[in-house]
Amino acid sequence: ERNLERVEELMPFKDTQTVTWIRVVGLHRVEQIEKLGELFGIHPLTLEDILNVHQRPKIEFFEDYIFVVMRTLSYEKGMKSEQISLVLGRNFLISFQERKSDIFKPVETRLRNNKGSIRKKGADYLLYSFLDIVVDSYFVLLETLGEVIDTLEDEVLSEPYPHIVKDIHLLKRDLNYAFKVFWTTRDEMNRLLREDSSLIRKRSLIYYRDVYDHIIRVIDITETMRDTVSGLLDVYFSSVSNRMNEIMKVLTIIATVFIPLTFIAGVYGMNFKYMPELEWKYGYPAVLLFMLLIGMGLLFFFRRKRWL
Amino acid sequence: ERNLERVEELMPFKDTQTVTWIRVVGLHRVEQIEKLGELFGIHPLTLEDILNVHQRPKIEFFEDYIFVVMRTLSYEKGMKSEQISLVLGRNFLISFQERKSDIFKPVETRLRNNKGSIRKKGADYLLYSFLDIVVDSYFVLLETLGEVIDTLEDEVLSEPYPHIVKDIHLLKRDLNYAFKVFWTTRDEMNRLLREDSSLIRKRSLIYYRDVYDHIIRVIDITETMRDTVSGLLDVYFSSVSNRMNEIMKVLTIIATVFIPLTFIAGVYGMNFKYMPELEWKYGYPAVLLFMLLIGMGLLFFFRRKRWL
Amino acid sequence: ERNLERVEELMPFKDTQTVTWIRVVGLHRVEQIEKLGELFGIHPLTLEDILNVHQRPKIEFFEDYIFVVMRTLSYEKGMKSEQISLVLGRNFLISFQERKSDIFKPVETRLRNNKGSIRKKGADYLLYSFLDIVVDSYFVLLETLGEVIDTLEDEVLSEPYPHIVKDIHLLKRDLNYAFKVFWTTRDEMNRLLREDSSLIRKRSLIYYRDVYDHIIRVIDITETMRDTVSGLLDVYFSSVSNRMNEIMKVLTIIATVFIPLTFIAGVYGMNFKYMPELEWKYGYPAVLLFMLLIGMGLLFFFRRKRWL
Amino acid sequence: ERNLERVEELMPFKDTQTVTWIRVVGLHRVEQIEKLGELFGIHPLTLEDILNVHQRPKIEFFEDYIFVVMRTLSYEKGMKSEQISLVLGRNFLISFQERKSDIFKPVETRLRNNKGSIRKKGADYLLYSFLDIVVDSYFVLLETLGEVIDTLEDEVLSEPYPHIVKDIHLLKRDLNYAFKVFWTTRDEMNRLLREDSSLIRKRSLIYYRDVYDHIIRVIDITETMRDTVSGLLDVYFSSVSNRMNEIMKVLTIIATVFIPLTFIAGVYGMNFKYMPELEWKYGYPAVLLFMLLIGMGLLFFFRRKRWL
Amino acid sequence: ERNLERVEELMPFKDTQTVTWIRVVGLHRVEQIEKLGELFGIHPLTLEDILNVHQRPKIEFFEDYIFVVMRTLSYEKGMKSEQISLVLGRNFLISFQERKSDIFKPVETRLRNNKGSIRKKGADYLLYSFLDIVVDSYFVLLETLGEVIDTLEDEVLSEPYPHIVKDIHLLKRDLNYAFKVFWTTRDEMNRLLREDSSLIRKRSLIYYRDVYDHIIRVIDITETMRDTVSGLLDVYFSSVSNRMNEIMKVLTIIATVFIPLTFIAGVYGMNFKYMPELEWKYGYPAVLLFMLLIGMGLLFFFRRKRWL
Repeated sequence: ERNLERVEELMPFKDTQTVTWIRVVGLHRVEQIEKLGELFGIHPLTLEDILNVHQRPKIEFFEDYIFVVMRTLSYEKGMKSEQISLVLGRNFLISFQERKSDIFKPVETRLRNNKGSIRKKGADYLLYSFLDIVVDSYFVLLETLGEVIDTLEDEVLSEPYPHIVKDIHLLKRDLNYAFKVFWTTRDEMNRLLREDSSLIRKRSLIYYRDVYDHIIRVIDITETMRDTVSGLLDVYFSSVSNRMNEIMKVLTIIATVFIPLTFIAGVYGMNFKYMPELEWKYGYPAVLLFMLLIGMGLLFFFRRKRWL
Repeated sequence: ERNLERVEELMPFKDTQTVTWIRVVGLHRVEQIEKLGELFGIHPLTLEDILNVHQRPKIEFFEDYIFVVMRTLSYEKGMKSEQISLVLGRNFLISFQERKSDIFKPVETRLRNNKGSIRKKGADYLLYSFLDIVVDSYFVLLETLGEVIDTLEDEVLSEPYPHIVKDIHLLKRDLNYAFKVFWTTRDEMNRLLREDSSLIRKRSLIYYRDVYDHIIRVIDITETMRDTVSGLLDVYFSSVSNRMNEIMKVLTIIATVFIPLTFIAGVYGMNFKYMPELEWKYGYPAVLLFMLLIGMGLLFFFRRKRWL
Repeated sequence: ERNLERVEELMPFKDTQTVTWIRVVGLHRVEQIEKLGELFGIHPLTLEDILNVHQRPKIEFFEDYIFVVMRTLSYEKGMKSEQISLVLGRNFLISFQERKSDIFKPVETRLRNNKGSIRKKGADYLLYSFLDIVVDSYFVLLETLGEVIDTLEDEVLSEPYPHIVKDIHLLKRDLNYAFKVFWTTRDEMNRLLREDSSLIRKRSLIYYRDVYDHIIRVIDITETMRDTVSGLLDVYFSSVSNRMNEIMKVLTIIATVFIPLTFIAGVYGMNFKYMPELEWKYGYPAVLLFMLLIGMGLLFFFRRKRWL
Repeated sequence: ERNLERVEELMPFKDTQTVTWIRVVGLHRVEQIEKLGELFGIHPLTLEDILNVHQRPKIEFFEDYIFVVMRTLSYEKGMKSEQISLVLGRNFLISFQERKSDIFKPVETRLRNNKGSIRKKGADYLLYSFLDIVVDSYFVLLETLGEVIDTLEDEVLSEPYPHIVKDIHLLKRDLNYAFKVFWTTRDEMNRLLREDSSLIRKRSLIYYRDVYDHIIRVIDITETMRDTVSGLLDVYFSSVSNRMNEIMKVLTIIATVFIPLTFIAGVYGMNFKYMPELEWKYGYPAVLLFMLLIGMGLLFFFRRKRWL
Repeated sequence: ERNLERVEELMPFKDTQTVTWIRVVGLHRVEQIEKLGELFGIHPLTLEDILNVHQRPKIEFFEDYIFVVMRTLSYEKGMKSEQISLVLGRNFLISFQERKSDIFKPVETRLRNNKGSIRKKGADYLLYSFLDIVVDSYFVLLETLGEVIDTLEDEVLSEPYPHIVKDIHLLKRDLNYAFKVFWTTRDEMNRLLREDSSLIRKRSLIYYRDVYDHIIRVIDITETMRDTVSGLLDVYFSSVSNRMNEIMKVLTIIATVFIPLTFIAGVYGMNFKYMPELEWKYGYPAVLLFMLLIGMGLLFFFRRKRWL
């Protein structure tokens, strides 16, 4: 285990019998990477794909190596995705990452401690470990997303703020993006399982099938999440319209109770000379009582109609 | 038929000619299960799938055994699902469950009573019995769900409570989950029918095809339910908007009838010195009559417009 | 042509050279049917499917016979469906129905009159006649459904009653059910066309292809109907919202015309000591005129805005 | 080129070396058509399909002939469709139509003028000419539909009339119908391209592929139209709701400006003995000014909120 | 590198060993192009496709050449598309365009400077360069569209103008059109990769696979954009309904606060002879206070209900 600065130092590792893991972190030193590519016989188009970190997940079979692109995903106020390129040769595995991340820590640790069966099991098992780690990291992502969705759901039901629709759509877009990454990974894994490459031994296939199984479960969960998020919009619109209805109902009731009463008051506010009621001794309390009765009647009517 | 505590006691049953059903209930005693796996030659990844009870339904063909994962579903304030793992060997069948449930009671009973053809027909027929029981339990689930949907439908039409939209979405999610389980089961059953494994005899295939037929019918019913639940939202929104319209109509009518009347009252409430009507002897009753006529006219107009 | 009560009486017909049509109506005499099954070598699972009348349409190929399940559909306040099971042997055809219906009348008549080519053309042609009759009955169903949809459409456009949304959804569900029956029938017919069974002669295949053609046309029509019914909901919601808008507009206009006028009346109803207008001789008619002008102005404004 | 009344007169044309085009217009003379079918060896089921003019587009391969059903479409207050049946034999082509239409005019003209390569190129080229003409007529239809859609779009945006939703749905249904015809034609053309029939020579295939290309373009355009028409509904609902909002805003503003003012007038209309303001000399103008200020303030508030 | 006016001048280039790129700009000189077609053995139907510039992207394999149709897309107040037809022969490549555009500038430059490997690598590599340039130009288009979508999104959220729904639908239509072009291009590229043509050498295939990869990424981005634009409509409708609710709330509050107050004022405006309150010394301020309390109470009620 060494930190090397120049590609030339890798020369001796090329043809050893043991498995070598070369880890390249940072893709700005293009020249060094091109030298590395030349040394291990990597096609220029593969190198291009490694350097342009916007590839979809894919697995390409070349004569002397298999080129694997995976994408890690993390969610922190928006989906973030990083590309991990892996080149599997006869007895070496080269990994390329833009930034140093902790995702491969477990493999590192196991290799260092010399415990675990990784060291013995060949390069294809090492590749499996990496794929497995990336796919398992998707479960962590989905947990985060699940919490985000739960929070959003609570807010939609209790107190929807104005731009929540946009937030829902952003989440939807992120989920769609993740879904696409998962689905493409699944497709490519499937192809790897059926392709007949000498670089991956028969008895390793069962491990790859396990990864495939996991990615399918990831897709299942994501699909359920997409349904939920789609449903959130319906819930939101119904929640908003419920509040609106609540408000409208109060308006209706207050207005419809007082409008007739105000009319009655208006009638007795007219200045006609001959209005017998106005002369009555108990005209005023009688009218007040009459108004009360009308108001009560209307409220009773509304209650019976179950509008209250 | 015995209750064993330690795996070693199973030794003698491994190579008998008769069919042995080993039933493992509770998955917390990992070590014992691993020993069992070793004894019957089960691959570590299979054991992992048995212990991690979030697998999708699946059927995997190994050299010496077939590994089947089924999921039972039950609905009680939300969908609950339990994993049942089955390992079919040459002349043994091992079932793994987290909790002891009554689902396999019928097979038990038949085995105990020694009646029924299960004992004679070999391990693959026993496996069929289990699959059949699980798929038949789906019909029970669908009946429960059908009742839940009917209740919800009634509530949507009579008196939609505020969070019914969320309940509909939860039900939809549960249905989607069940649908996915059914669909995957169907896919795997289909694969089992076409796969050529020596562990399942030709003449047993017709039974498996029958299970396949049942699962397809389960899927059909579930699809209809999903349509119904989707429709519920439309019905809900239309029901809410109907109530809203009803309320708005009353507001409109009361308001539009009284607003002009109030205006007239307002006119005769003005304090102009020279307002001839005010001096008339029958001005007051005339105005009241006039108001009545206007009110009636408006009501008549609304009725003719069919708003009432 | 005879009416038999006991299965044993069928013995002599089993091995004749001529084609025999055995018609079983009513499925409650399970024992007799099981005897029949034994006599003609029908598999127990097939008998189970015959007795459990909730099968999907299907065609199963056995060594000695072909088992066909068809479903007749009729619509009368909801979709009704009956199962017709057919067993085609070398020179016999057995049909199973729950209730006696007139659907096979035409075949009966033709057989009785000895005219038509049915008697000569073998059992597979007889089976074709039955399939043809069932599929043709679907066209009748679709005509009925077409009328139901037309009625619903008229009601949606003229006078939507409150629960019409539910009716639309029920119709949609029925259509989906019929669609599923048609589609499955199509699938199974397609399989029959490609399957190579000695029981169906090459030269009969062209007739089966004709049935297949008809079922595809049935599916086409059903799809169009589903589109129409889906559209009905949109039309309904737009129709409701149109009525609502109409009502709101009247409210707006009446309210907005009278609210300012009432305000003016209110102003001159104030009791200030010094209000010069009140003393004017023509103050009252002047105010009335002013109110009229304002009212006319508002109406003119609304008309110009095309709200009236 | 002759107009024949009786089928017998066709006898001599059956076995000539040159290509013969027999054109049958009007399908009511069933007997003559059956005679024709017998003469040219056409299967009874084919004749049935020719006479029943509700077939889907299809191409059927028989031993001695190819049977082609095409549908012409025209739009004039609803979609109209006519069936054109074509029977391609070794050196004859028979076309069947219900009514005489001008659609095959170009071929007629070219045949009459003896110019163009149609006469020399054999019956399969003649068939191609017919298919080409029918598919090209679809482009004309799409142009008409395009104009209908444009008109509808303008009306939706400027002045939506009440039943426009129904018109949109009718158009949608027509488009779906056309789409289905196009799609089926495409499928059948595709099958023709892959089928290996001796009646269509290899070197003619490139022409058929050209027709196939055209039908795909037709489908593309139709899909775009379907999207547009679907979008029309959204535009309509948003347009209606925009108008509604406009109206509601005016109501809100007029009502909310005048309601407080009316209240103030009401206050000073009260008949309390001790109301000091009433005695003030400038109480009346002061109140008017106060009302003006409040009205202006509210309008200013609305403008700042961008509601005006 | 020469500008030629007449096709005859191309004679000598037909059979050279080196690769010749013939660039035809402007398709109005039909005769010259037909001569060119004759000279290089291009089928009349291909020429027709070149001249009719509404083809879908496609790749057709002929015996002596491959015919490729690509579409460039640009967005400037609506999608614009131009057809580029390419004919790849053994050692020549002919490109046809309607208008002179700068899209092939990079290839031109590289050819002129004699640097770059284009000149050496054969006609199939030249074709690849052209495909690559066209597909890369799609990324530029998508960037433009991305900005248009962002602008629209901002407008939807801040200040939706009336016809924004139509703009969204136009954008959607444009995106669908682009999507169709991309998808068809992908399909045809895929076919090219699997087709076995002697005109494209094995070792060039990896470059074509790279173009295929790019077009898939283009499709991915477009799909995300389509989701976003679809979401825009939801956001718009929710935004409009939010504003509407805001307005309605203010109306409700002002109206419901003042309607009861106006009623009270109306009561004390009645002219009954015996109304004791009117005689009280502090009746007027008491009523004002009472009104104030009621108004405050209602506001407090609204605030507690979170309507304010």
